[in-house]
Amino acid sequence: MARVHNFNAGPASLPLAALERAQRELIDFEGTGMSIIEHSHRGKAYEAVHNEAIKLVRDLLGVSDDYHVLFLQGGASQQFAVVPMNLLPAGKSADYVLTGGWSEKALEEAKRVGNARVAATTADNKKYTRVPKQGELQLDPEAAYVHITSNNTLFGTQWQEFPDTGKVPLVADMSSDILWRKFDVSKFGLIYAGAQKNIGPSGVTLVIVRKDLVDGGRKDIPVIFQYATHAANNSLYNTPPTFAIYLMRNVLAHLASQGGLEAVEANNRKKADTLYGALDELSSYYKAPVAKDSRSTMNVVFRLPTEDLEKKFVADAAKKGMVGLAGHRSTGGVRASIYNAVTLESVETLVAFMREFAKG
Amino acid sequence: MARVHNFNAGPASLPLAALERAQRELIDFEGTGMSIIEHSHRGKAYEAVHNEAIKLVRDLLGVSDDYHVLFLQGGASQQFAVVPMNLLPAGKSADYVLTGGWSEKALEEAKRVGNARVAATTADNKKYTRVPKQGELQLDPEAAYVHITSNNTLFGTQWQEFPDTGKVPLVADMSSDILWRKFDVSKFGLIYAGAQKNIGPSGVTLVIVRKDLVDGGRKDIPVIFQYATHAANNSLYNTPPTFAIYLMRNVLAHLASQGGLEAVEANNRKKADTLYGALDELSSYYKAPVAKDSRSTMNVVFRLPTEDLEKKFVADAAKKGMVGLAGHRSTGGVRASIYNAVTLESVETLVAFMREFAKG
Repeated sequence: MARVHNFNAGPASLPLAALERAQRELIDFEGTGMSIIEHSHRGKAYEAVHNEAIKLVRDLLGVSDDYHVLFLQGGASQQFAVVPMNLLPAGKSADYVLTGGWSEKALEEAKRVGNARVAATTADNKKYTRVPKQGELQLDPEAAYVHITSNNTLFGTQWQEFPDTGKVPLVADMSSDILWRKFDVSKFGLIYAGAQKNIGPSGVTLVIVRKDLVDGGRKDIPVIFQYATHAANNSLYNTPPTFAIYLMRNVLAHLASQGGLEAVEANNRKKADTLYGALDELSSYYKAPVAKDSRSTMNVVFRLPTEDLEKKFVADAAKKGMVGLAGHRSTGGVRASIYNAVTLESVETLVAFMREFAKG
Repeated sequence: MARVHNFNAGPASLPLAALERAQRELIDFEGTGMSIIEHSHRGKAYEAVHNEAIKLVRDLLGVSDDYHVLFLQGGASQQFAVVPMNLLPAGKSADYVLTGGWSEKALEEAKRVGNARVAATTADNKKYTRVPKQGELQLDPEAAYVHITSNNTLFGTQWQEFPDTGKVPLVADMSSDILWRKFDVSKFGLIYAGAQKNIGPSGVTLVIVRKDLVDGGRKDIPVIFQYATHAANNSLYNTPPTFAIYLMRNVLAHLASQGGLEAVEANNRKKADTLYGALDELSSYYKAPVAKDSRSTMNVVFRLPTEDLEKKFVADAAKKGMVGLAGHRSTGGVRASIYNAVTLESVETLVAFMREFAKG
């Protein structure tokens, strides 16, 4: 079957070129007579892929030598616990900014590890239609760190500018928008992201962390959970998820070949402008609940006049080869996830369908 | 290039049929117009694969309804910490049987979580040439559990019969020999295994755990590390490593199609007998250090007269398409890992080379 228009929220669409490269060499990697999956993680063939992936992250985002780039397992959900295990010592507290279900989960795990408090929330009866402004943040100047979720897949909000947390390290879950554009990594103490939205398959977690935070991290936790362990071993302390890292390498190399993150951002903005433009134009039919200055370029959520029409919209779209448009089970509605690998053509196809559907 | 004879210790050789199936449908999974990697973990297409993989584990090993079958992340190294986090409450102690480097690491992590003691060791100046006999185990009848490593990749030893631990739950790291044969799962409280040796790619960890241990497990740890969380959500609490599970499914389905674990065991025994038979026959040249009753059917270690000859052996073998034969960097020597997917033909090719090499 032809490629569908994949608006899945994650795992999500990947660049076809990255998948085709994987398919071509899946049985015989670079003439070695075995799959990359069958290579030792301590061998030269895999090591070259591993190090290329790290270098691509560094190059694409402009990550300085003050930071480690780590490939871990367990997804963002594991980092919800591992961040405070490393960075939240007894006697300190961490600040959490709540902008959706994922930041709530991050806070819950932090509370199981140590002291954590809410520095701001835009919950507003769980509608979370915006991210907070700088002036709304009630920051603890003694906090171990401030935690934010850069993009909220469930509610379709995104930080356009990151908050100023002074000397307190800023920690961000960027699972759903990492590498959608270039940004100033030096403003962050730690960034983590499950790969399965913008940069690869599920099963690998990218962590970018300032070296001094690793050095000062807690050492009274299991060795496997210490960032210091993985930093000292180039993410090869234990067997990494080699194929997931390989495929992430393919995606990153594809992004680089497309002109880097400037080109990626331009394409993403065009896609978002196209879709939000249609929503604004058709606002008598479609309702976009998110405040304009908090609109996500990655997850576009909207409602139709009735839930029945929403179901029909999702079902009719699927028949036309547009899949993954149902909103999250906790929120309902419609959600189009337009991550890096979703093409402008897919977005334009969706917009044409929206116009037609609104006519009834 | 033609397929090499892959004796890697892990990640390791996989059945060609499982890889070819993955290659065929990598871009378009079952006519859905997208890769399995791009499918939502909450969609029907992926869910069917996920549940089939669980059922295959249950069927192949005869796992009863008293046990959960879980797919987690982080490898055995993460389970070294997660097992005691769940099963070792304050005021209790756990027993560890040391038979090599991996069990040492498991003990070290347990000590960071709670109280753990050595119930037996065959270290003997770190040579670990055998597993202990039942009579050597100094078991604490009040222990939370007894931990063993079923097969030791570094030293080439393996438990042929599992120890009797009475009412104390037996916990086993089976990373390097899970599914090499059928065994009585009901003798165990918990079994864990990184997939990357016998059953799939790196990046997914199989856990088989008795339901009462999950129910009685500690609830004061982060939610993500509780077995209860993953058991209650069919290993879909957070995004699982979908491609790794998919490929494991392919491997398990292939094992089933080959006649199940009785056929797998017969083939493994034939391979091991062939290789150990050659070592015994050529014992004036090759030295197999492991006690006969502890010989591993998965990792066959041996020495040559000098380290220079060992290097030449490994290099000459590679030229003839036999790769991965260098012993672990901590032990040296030669190691042939002959996991499920390594064919009898590969073993016979190696044996023919050994005969030739010994002639000088």
